[in-house]
Amino acid sequence: MKHPFLMTPGPSPLAPEVKQALSKDIIHHRTAEFRSILKEVHSGLKYVFQTQNPVLVLSSSGTGAMEAAVANLLSRNDKILVVVGGKFGQRWQEICQSYSLNVVSWEIEWGSSPSVIELENLLDKHSDIKAVFTTLCETSTATVYDIEATAKVCRQRDILLIVDAISGLGSDVLKTDEWGVDVVVAGSQKGLMLPPGLSFISLSPKAQAALETSNFPHYYFDLKKALKSYAKDDTPYTASVSLVIALREALKLIKNEGIEKRWEDFSRIGEALRRALETLGFGIFSRSPSASVTAGEVKSMDASLIIKKMASDFGITIAGGQAELKGKIIRIAHMGYINASDVLTCLAALEEVVQSLGKNIERGKSLKTFQEAYCVQNSN
Amino acid sequence: MKHPFLMTPGPSPLAPEVKQALSKDIIHHRTAEFRSILKEVHSGLKYVFQTQNPVLVLSSSGTGAMEAAVANLLSRNDKILVVVGGKFGQRWQEICQSYSLNVVSWEIEWGSSPSVIELENLLDKHSDIKAVFTTLCETSTATVYDIEATAKVCRQRDILLIVDAISGLGSDVLKTDEWGVDVVVAGSQKGLMLPPGLSFISLSPKAQAALETSNFPHYYFDLKKALKSYAKDDTPYTASVSLVIALREALKLIKNEGIEKRWEDFSRIGEALRRALETLGFGIFSRSPSASVTAGEVKSMDASLIIKKMASDFGITIAGGQAELKGKIIRIAHMGYINASDVLTCLAALEEVVQSLGKNIERGKSLKTFQEAYCVQNSN
Repeated sequence: MKHPFLMTPGPSPLAPEVKQALSKDIIHHRTAEFRSILKEVHSGLKYVFQTQNPVLVLSSSGTGAMEAAVANLLSRNDKILVVVGGKFGQRWQEICQSYSLNVVSWEIEWGSSPSVIELENLLDKHSDIKAVFTTLCETSTATVYDIEATAKVCRQRDILLIVDAISGLGSDVLKTDEWGVDVVVAGSQKGLMLPPGLSFISLSPKAQAALETSNFPHYYFDLKKALKSYAKDDTPYTASVSLVIALREALKLIKNEGIEKRWEDFSRIGEALRRALETLGFGIFSRSPSASVTAGEVKSMDASLIIKKMASDFGITIAGGQAELKGKIIRIAHMGYINASDVLTCLAALEEVVQSLGKNIERGKSLKTFQEAYCVQNSN
Repeated sequence: MKHPFLMTPGPSPLAPEVKQALSKDIIHHRTAEFRSILKEVHSGLKYVFQTQNPVLVLSSSGTGAMEAAVANLLSRNDKILVVVGGKFGQRWQEICQSYSLNVVSWEIEWGSSPSVIELENLLDKHSDIKAVFTTLCETSTATVYDIEATAKVCRQRDILLIVDAISGLGSDVLKTDEWGVDVVVAGSQKGLMLPPGLSFISLSPKAQAALETSNFPHYYFDLKKALKSYAKDDTPYTASVSLVIALREALKLIKNEGIEKRWEDFSRIGEALRRALETLGFGIFSRSPSASVTAGEVKSMDASLIIKKMASDFGITIAGGQAELKGKIIRIAHMGYINASDVLTCLAALEEVVQSLGKNIERGKSLKTFQEAYCVQNSN
């Protein structure tokens, strides 16, 4: 009997506590009971975001929160810089272009992290840049960006820093306040072990001040209104009640384990997985690998066939490459409810799939490598 | 033991099949499996909306779909008419004002349905009106509007008609195509027996043509992009997978019972409830009562105390009045998964509550009245 299992970088498997919460009877959103749940959720989100800033809960996919950032913080023709090193940098670019911002697109090599020196040069050249849009984990290339260094540069120049942490939150290290990140956007269906449908946005005092000057039309994603409701542990429009109640459970799980412990664990899993993939003949695509997802270059192997066979023969869904990386990589997520045992199971299946594609594999070798790398790190 | 039960006009109780679906493991949204579910959902929504037009599924509350209509169909300074006879007419007004439309606000008496003759006069006076925004069931006053007549007038003048059916869909009669309604907006948490988190929008060919000329900035609620995805039974951004899968179950339930049968049943429940409320000393607020929700005028009784005691003594949550109706009415929903037995239970509790507030009530009288009115109608 196959146990279908999602190892894609979103949606990611639901925690059992989440599934249980989702199947409960609905309650009304304008009640003391729901406000007390939202209060817990707001506090739990601050912990996961590592911030004392408000973290607003929106009912939308992560893209909705990305648009909310653009539509509420800037105005037509404002000059902004977008780091474009994959599909999600392109999404920032597209949203900013939809709003007729003056977009400086900084195209970096896919799989690399943006260089701080180049960033400084760009900001010197364009001294009127108001905001930098970037990504914590560029999921499409399984690459983590150095947000700490980016934040330092932006702070020095009083430029707003807006970070898409949709896939990275909870697994890649993110210290919003310590690093000085103004705005962090996230979604429910990755590190938070929930179905898609909620998005989140944190706003520093500088970002809150920027809300006052933006003049784009908006209503549903009105962050000034959302901030007012937030102060009363409420939402301006009907909240996605069931998802919020389930989120409370997920946040408890993360708090109980500890965010630092989770960052370390996912980082170890990623490191061990990379070594294991190499024993199977894969290359490692990213030069700044994320702790949330790993991209293996398939080289001469057929990526789509690997993905297909992983699903059909073992019930494990992994992801392929997107856009220019289609056919060139496979992507295995390690975020949210996925743990080291799941990755081990995935590797066992992958050994068989690679073998079935005609490659001569020493059975168990990738497992041994993973086991050694993960456990040695763990015991250090 | 109290059985907590929601009789508010949204959120409304979840069908058991919906709760079961919500607790399932998540699946990936870019798969043949999910596309086939979306295909069923698209077809089921067309049935409930009574249309052959596409019905798009958005991840947001109903307000998001309302904004999507404004942001995608019109342009700055376009003149539009908004029917304002309650809180949700005011919401159209606010959204249209946020987008700097040239808003003609038609304030009608709360609890009344807009007059067709006045509508014609207004459209004569403002011959450059491009669209009319109105409401199927104005939930705040429990009033159903004559959308059929409104549509006839709009069609004659080639004016876009955009209807908020968020609380009315599934209980108040709505024949989108037969009446010629261009755009219908709805939400998941009322007649569709789901938690909040999904919204829907149907687009006639005329509305689809209007998408081409609108020039507001938008991205997440880009209906042109959503239509392209719809054609492939897909969504532009990550769908709220769990809610969509649960929606399939709810749509099956409605299809199996038949939408006409449901319209009739909720209409009978409403009629019987109104007669029963009168025996308890309530007035009937609306002069055009909706089949989705009933508003009882409390007259000399204390509305907030009634609502409070219904919850504390019997576990039944009913709603009060909003804005200018606060303290003046109670509202009892009959939509979605609420049936005649639930309303009977609600009346039994209400008899006790009214009695406890010092009113001399003949026990069982409202129940007898409801039983007679509902069953006589049913047997006709």
